[in-house]
Amino acid sequence: MSKENSRSLIISSLDVQKIVHKVGLDKLMDTIISRLTFAIANYDSDKIDIPIRSGFNYSLPKTGLIEWMPVYQKGEEVIIKVVGYHPNNPKLHGLPTIVSTISSYSTHTGNLKGILDGVLPTAFRTGAASALASRLMAKPNSSILGLIGCGAQAVTQFHALSRIFGIEKVLIYDIDQESTMNFQNRCSAFNHNAEIIVADIDKIMSESDIVCSATSIGIGEGPLFHEGIYKKHLHVNAVGSDFAGKVELPLSLLKQSFVAPDFKNQAEIEGECQQLSSLEIGPELSELVQNYEDHVDIQNRITVFDSTGWALEDKVMMDLFMEYALKFGYGTTIQIESISQDAKNPYAFANQQSDTERAIRNYVMTRKEV
Amino acid sequence: MSKENSRSLIISSLDVQKIVHKVGLDKLMDTIISRLTFAIANYDSDKIDIPIRSGFNYSLPKTGLIEWMPVYQKGEEVIIKVVGYHPNNPKLHGLPTIVSTISSYSTHTGNLKGILDGVLPTAFRTGAASALASRLMAKPNSSILGLIGCGAQAVTQFHALSRIFGIEKVLIYDIDQESTMNFQNRCSAFNHNAEIIVADIDKIMSESDIVCSATSIGIGEGPLFHEGIYKKHLHVNAVGSDFAGKVELPLSLLKQSFVAPDFKNQAEIEGECQQLSSLEIGPELSELVQNYEDHVDIQNRITVFDSTGWALEDKVMMDLFMEYALKFGYGTTIQIESISQDAKNPYAFANQQSDTERAIRNYVMTRKEV
Repeated sequence: MSKENSRSLIISSLDVQKIVHKVGLDKLMDTIISRLTFAIANYDSDKIDIPIRSGFNYSLPKTGLIEWMPVYQKGEEVIIKVVGYHPNNPKLHGLPTIVSTISSYSTHTGNLKGILDGVLPTAFRTGAASALASRLMAKPNSSILGLIGCGAQAVTQFHALSRIFGIEKVLIYDIDQESTMNFQNRCSAFNHNAEIIVADIDKIMSESDIVCSATSIGIGEGPLFHEGIYKKHLHVNAVGSDFAGKVELPLSLLKQSFVAPDFKNQAEIEGECQQLSSLEIGPELSELVQNYEDHVDIQNRITVFDSTGWALEDKVMMDLFMEYALKFGYGTTIQIESISQDAKNPYAFANQQSDTERAIRNYVMTRKEV
Repeated sequence: MSKENSRSLIISSLDVQKIVHKVGLDKLMDTIISRLTFAIANYDSDKIDIPIRSGFNYSLPKTGLIEWMPVYQKGEEVIIKVVGYHPNNPKLHGLPTIVSTISSYSTHTGNLKGILDGVLPTAFRTGAASALASRLMAKPNSSILGLIGCGAQAVTQFHALSRIFGIEKVLIYDIDQESTMNFQNRCSAFNHNAEIIVADIDKIMSESDIVCSATSIGIGEGPLFHEGIYKKHLHVNAVGSDFAGKVELPLSLLKQSFVAPDFKNQAEIEGECQQLSSLEIGPELSELVQNYEDHVDIQNRITVFDSTGWALEDKVMMDLFMEYALKFGYGTTIQIESISQDAKNPYAFANQQSDTERAIRNYVMTRKEV
């Protein structure tokens, strides 16, 4: 790396949209699922270090959270997603609940290589993670999808799952009627052949092959339901639980399920796994992908993917969108960091101006003399 | 906050330079010292939460560190500086050793409010912190400044101290001869009346009223010297020690000194305070500012400011430069985060295109019919 590439590439919301238009929404989701599968299948904790995220939780001015999710690919880069969770955003500000940006830093120099909109990529990768988990845990012929919570995440959950399964029917529920009413319309940007039907949670839980829960249920207010009759091969992607004290699924369901978290140490703090003892928790998704032959029977069981959001997923998005942006020439390149002409002189630019001023002064004086 | 101000203001290297030119280098340093003093005098841990920074340390491809320094002003904003320390940067890449960016996030919505070059602001605030500490701990009539290590940080140390003290003589030392030879030239951007003299460490330690150490001495290779004769009112700003195992000052000097760290918990891990027991460490800088009457005698003693870099200092810089950028109309505003027209539909933009395409299609069809 030299001074020439110490600039930062900003991949904004508009750039992400341009990439979507260029690649195509369905093709892009397919690529994300396949990149994520590859990354997880090849994940090696000796090469990639992923500490538990930490952050600030607060209740003022409103309930919220800002946290950072670092991941270090040894010898190469550090990627940090900074993510805000503010459930009052849609209502109060017309903004999404989950707002984030993803940044990449070179471990050769510390240079900020790029910043990426995290909002749409997070929704993409969260959908893709459920698709990947469902491909392992759900019946391949699953055709009925249940969605509890019909917000932004539900759209990409449905999209991603529809790329893997022949979804014929989607049963949907949300405490906000408007969200159920306009859900079909919000799913018109991608191709699917499913009938979308409003249902109650009981019906969703008893009739679905796959369920995704992605709600903004309050801390201490879960689970979303208590009892249920389930298909014996039901697979649940538990997406919404990502905050200490916030759970969506009842303990009775978890107890009878094979539960695979994305990141066990994190899921025990803020996922459905909060409710389980360590021994009741199954393998992490990466172990499941890497040792699938040990778990061939799980498609015949009730299974739960406890998706709290794993920094490796964000790294896949950062690397992919950087690749697209460079390939298509999208994004804005800015020299954010002060890279002085003289690395040991932070004021070199000020000298330069003085030099210029001096030169102008000399020039003016010379002219006078002439 | 509404969608209109969900954009991010990027204050690049060039914008920082424009601010310096507009405000003036000396005036700017005076403002930073005064803002920092105000922030520290009013610091209240009930209102501002500053956890210890964490990060990734590595030796491959070269010795380096990337860490994040979060600070949370309750009810208002989270500021995170991500900083890289790569001591081979100047030699291998022509880049500064310390490269960073500072970001601010609203705790109302999670929105990334702005990103600021951290390189020059870090050098500024590190100098300003030493000036503030020295104003409290050094003799007001200090006139001889010693600098051990003549890299980028030494320039702003000298600049900041020269704003507070009538510095007449600067004794300088660096293992790199070139750094001592061109130091005077690197200090030509600001006003000072001091004679700059190359010296050895013994001479610096025995003749100076104030010493700043800011070296890249290796981990486990310190201290920079072992014994010394010191003026009985010597004040040392220990700037370079900011890494576990990296120290600049000998234990014998620390043992006889009043040692005030910027952030005790952090200094015990990576500052000079690594060498001391908790009881041997004096008050934090903020306690010293807020309870100065309890320490009136320290200007007659040997004193050490253990400056590891405190996130509050970065917050002061972020707030100040945001203020300048908005006032002068500098910086670049980008909508980085995807703020969908419909907060619950991440694909709203794709529908918009479909709508447009449909409209065009209809228009073309209509034209044909006509």
